[in-house]
Amino acid sequence: MIKPLTSAILLALASFSTQAAEFVLTDAATGRDVGNWQVSSKSLGIDAATPFSIEKRRLHGGKQEGVDILVVNNGVMEITLVPTRGMGIYQVKSGDLRLGWDSPVKEIVNPAFIDLESRNGLGWLDGFNEMMVRCGYEWTGHPGVDENGQLLSLHGRVQNTPASSVKVIIDDQAPHRIRILGEVSERTFKKAELVTATELSVEPGSNRFELHDALTNRADYVDEYQIIYHSNFGTPILEAGAKFVTAASEISPFNDYARKGLHSWQTYLAPTKDFDEMVFNLKPKGDAEGNTLAVLHNQAGNAGVAVGYNIQQLPVLTLWKNTDTKQQGYVTGIEPGTSYAYNTKYQRPLGLVPKIQPGETKHFDLSYTLLRNADETTTALSQVAKLQGSDPVREVKQPQVDLSKK
Amino acid sequence: MIKPLTSAILLALASFSTQAAEFVLTDAATGRDVGNWQVSSKSLGIDAATPFSIEKRRLHGGKQEGVDILVVNNGVMEITLVPTRGMGIYQVKSGDLRLGWDSPVKEIVNPAFIDLESRNGLGWLDGFNEMMVRCGYEWTGHPGVDENGQLLSLHGRVQNTPASSVKVIIDDQAPHRIRILGEVSERTFKKAELVTATELSVEPGSNRFELHDALTNRADYVDEYQIIYHSNFGTPILEAGAKFVTAASEISPFNDYARKGLHSWQTYLAPTKDFDEMVFNLKPKGDAEGNTLAVLHNQAGNAGVAVGYNIQQLPVLTLWKNTDTKQQGYVTGIEPGTSYAYNTKYQRPLGLVPKIQPGETKHFDLSYTLLRNADETTTALSQVAKLQGSDPVREVKQPQVDLSKK
Amino acid sequence: MIKPLTSAILLALASFSTQAAEFVLTDAATGRDVGNWQVSSKSLGIDAATPFSIEKRRLHGGKQEGVDILVVNNGVMEITLVPTRGMGIYQVKSGDLRLGWDSPVKEIVNPAFIDLESRNGLGWLDGFNEMMVRCGYEWTGHPGVDENGQLLSLHGRVQNTPASSVKVIIDDQAPHRIRILGEVSERTFKKAELVTATELSVEPGSNRFELHDALTNRADYVDEYQIIYHSNFGTPILEAGAKFVTAASEISPFNDYARKGLHSWQTYLAPTKDFDEMVFNLKPKGDAEGNTLAVLHNQAGNAGVAVGYNIQQLPVLTLWKNTDTKQQGYVTGIEPGTSYAYNTKYQRPLGLVPKIQPGETKHFDLSYTLLRNADETTTALSQVAKLQGSDPVREVKQPQVDLSKK
Repeated sequence: MIKPLTSAILLALASFSTQAAEFVLTDAATGRDVGNWQVSSKSLGIDAATPFSIEKRRLHGGKQEGVDILVVNNGVMEITLVPTRGMGIYQVKSGDLRLGWDSPVKEIVNPAFIDLESRNGLGWLDGFNEMMVRCGYEWTGHPGVDENGQLLSLHGRVQNTPASSVKVIIDDQAPHRIRILGEVSERTFKKAELVTATELSVEPGSNRFELHDALTNRADYVDEYQIIYHSNFGTPILEAGAKFVTAASEISPFNDYARKGLHSWQTYLAPTKDFDEMVFNLKPKGDAEGNTLAVLHNQAGNAGVAVGYNIQQLPVLTLWKNTDTKQQGYVTGIEPGTSYAYNTKYQRPLGLVPKIQPGETKHFDLSYTLLRNADETTTALSQVAKLQGSDPVREVKQPQVDLSKK
Repeated sequence: MIKPLTSAILLALASFSTQAAEFVLTDAATGRDVGNWQVSSKSLGIDAATPFSIEKRRLHGGKQEGVDILVVNNGVMEITLVPTRGMGIYQVKSGDLRLGWDSPVKEIVNPAFIDLESRNGLGWLDGFNEMMVRCGYEWTGHPGVDENGQLLSLHGRVQNTPASSVKVIIDDQAPHRIRILGEVSERTFKKAELVTATELSVEPGSNRFELHDALTNRADYVDEYQIIYHSNFGTPILEAGAKFVTAASEISPFNDYARKGLHSWQTYLAPTKDFDEMVFNLKPKGDAEGNTLAVLHNQAGNAGVAVGYNIQQLPVLTLWKNTDTKQQGYVTGIEPGTSYAYNTKYQRPLGLVPKIQPGETKHFDLSYTLLRNADETTTALSQVAKLQGSDPVREVKQPQVDLSKK
Repeated sequence: MIKPLTSAILLALASFSTQAAEFVLTDAATGRDVGNWQVSSKSLGIDAATPFSIEKRRLHGGKQEGVDILVVNNGVMEITLVPTRGMGIYQVKSGDLRLGWDSPVKEIVNPAFIDLESRNGLGWLDGFNEMMVRCGYEWTGHPGVDENGQLLSLHGRVQNTPASSVKVIIDDQAPHRIRILGEVSERTFKKAELVTATELSVEPGSNRFELHDALTNRADYVDEYQIIYHSNFGTPILEAGAKFVTAASEISPFNDYARKGLHSWQTYLAPTKDFDEMVFNLKPKGDAEGNTLAVLHNQAGNAGVAVGYNIQQLPVLTLWKNTDTKQQGYVTGIEPGTSYAYNTKYQRPLGLVPKIQPGETKHFDLSYTLLRNADETTTALSQVAKLQGSDPVREVKQPQVDLSKK
């Protein structure tokens, strides 16, 4: 049963076919934005098994002045996207469970207030507080001067690029899948024409959502690209005795400091003064199609998250263990990527700076599943075990890059 | 016949004398802005031979969030100005004809999102897509560290400076000339007090508009200044066999790469992979008052543009041939200036970094004329021929600057 | 007598106890801002001896687009605060008297348009025009590369940080003290968690206002901090023959250029071409509680300002004499601080880069008193004389730092 739409909804309504309702919230091509906006299964007249709602809201105060957030509530999870920050995911809440973390950075920072090249390329840290940050696509990794003399700032520019367009599509038919489409453009004359069509897709009532990103090189010249899906989790999942489990052929420390944590890479400490961060480089294993899974769960094994991705798209995995104090940001990162977190110049010799041809599109598909109890956690772990097979993860003590060499 | 004004118009109406109606759209001195706004010959009750309209509109989406454009439709041309970007001209449309180009940069970028010093001073490229960009006035040219150790970013700061005030003035009397006044300030404590009163002037029904800019040094100290009027044209005028014709005493290549294109400097290639850009430095010739003309026309010679300027104000001309592929930005620049496109430190020895005394005002007057048919094109070319006289343009093979020297 | 509040006021009203009315104008934690807003003794139904009003207004035009100002009129003074610029004080007006100056920078610049690291760390100069600028708290002083290789830009970041929250509190009881609370956060992952609760406090009818700032290190690690309260005064107080009087044990020139002005440190020249700036470093003397006073008055001694602070909080004083031409910015700075204006690396050996422990709060209390006539001026001068006692200020010819050493 479809009820008449209210005028507020109609403002953004681009098309309402027999297949799906499509709402254009932002569109740089026409220069338009709907402003604060919301829609719900009820306002759409959808008699849904699980009621859902989507709300766009403009934030104010401090450095978040003018930032738009988009909150998708699918009845199970409340997912907060940030169109102004490259369609990043601020957090996901589901009852007591939460995907996300408590960064010292409290505001959702408008990129207008960020200078990525400040502090020798660490300006990105002024805004880092999301659950999922895209680090790319022109480059990724630690800041440093590249071979051509250009400073590559930490983790690229896409997360500090406001989305050029934002659309919401809701299927007419049950289960009324919700899709949030956001286009993020990295366009610089003579330097880059990398356009990413991001998609977050979720069904009402589900404990899982998916990302389907398509990066296209719109230039007539081949270009390098890099991407890390920097996925960050703190309390309540991360705690003393929390565990990280994934299928991999090999793990090695990012640098000398991480060597001492190599043997205990799967477990986590409580918030620990002076821990700083330990980073590990993994070579993940997938199934025949390349699909793989990484699981983080709490000490009791009854709450966690499973991150799915494809190693043909994202062949390496960075594990970031930042179990420093709570105030400092107690968090771990599960980071599938084309590349590790080294500066680009170190990754070319590793073969981890891929190229994208003119007009070519690269796809990145990820899923995030809330593990809400022991059953769901056990199921996810058994999937990982199956992917791992009988060979254990090989621990390599030597970092892949000698950072003492400039 | 003057009809009563509507309340929307009255909001901005500053004065309505027997000579002209003046509308203040933006005024930093009082902190005010009218927001979206429009006026037309009809709304003003003017029984014009050619109806006209002017509209101010705020853009949204991506990096153009908060950008104001001002669209002047004089019945023949639709001229889009960008107050937020230094009163630059985004494009001019007239039926099938268009002054402008298709940059890989699609949005009209808010300077809040631009870091001019990024990429070693190439941040300006993040927003470059206009038909007419003022490159100045503190400095112009390619990025580089100046003699005092300061990085001069590409083409100065004025184009990424929002206009402090915007006024529209419409003559009461026929032909009801429309003038758009925008003040753009480059003010930095102890560094610069360069204020430019820009003016775009156009008559309803005309195929020509003029710029009358007045740069004043408000400081008590002499200062250097530089300006290039970077005027850029792509399709439909630019095409294989399009031609550039101007009166000049001499042409030389900007660098070694441009040497090979010296003999064919007047003609254009189709979009050409790996062409990149060739730049030529011209010494233009003017009439007794210094007025000169540069013409670009299509292959058939029935569509083009004539750029008029004064060589006493703008003594040199840069010709920028960027006939690379369409995606890369197929465009040519006709760039009258005080200076060539070299970094400032290279131009001082050439005598192309002029000074402006305390309180002094420098004037820059340019005109842009649409050439809509063979007759108008032929007329413009004959004007150029007359300026050129019997002496041909001398082709000098040696670049004026040896860029291999640091 | 309390009259019913209007709806406009109620929008921001957070609580209205028997003690005080509190209005939340901006709050990043909830993402809210009231927009343009005002309140007055009349609208509050307060039958005040001196009527007062407070107005928040958003500015437009040029680089001040989106800047919020907050104007407090206590019946004697009109104090203009700038929440968007770190709760700085733009100016204070009281009849013909004014605290503030005429900077070449005319707009109240939105930090979104400022790149602090531009011009080798001088970007701060693009926005410098306030009467009171907080220079800190991560660092202060002249730009330069610190020992760890990071460029420290001029005078830190706090002034170019929009306030995260803004509150107005008005006491119910006479004298109905008005307090403006603004929180300004310097938060960067792994780098800083310095949060400053600023407070401006003023009574209706008073010629004096106070600052009570509380800087808290929210991190779990000890951090350095520095602060200078850069308080700037031009005409009408500053003029030829104006005088600066304060209690100090010692004064020394900042650099070699200031040596020649050492003997005349207490008096001012008329606007003087090529004067540039002379800076002096003072070691102030306080009373038993550390309270001290610095007085600037005009030639006639019947108009001025007294700046009170505490030398246990702010142990040193910079005197900035910028008596260059009017256009250049004719101004003097009275700058109590933890530190002088040297780059941080030079101040560590001087013991002027203090530390703040995890969770520790540092308090900074200052007062600004308008001296409106000879009596008030004489009273302030006698307070300084009492603090000075019989020992004169010792003049040390040698700068404390040898700037010729890198």
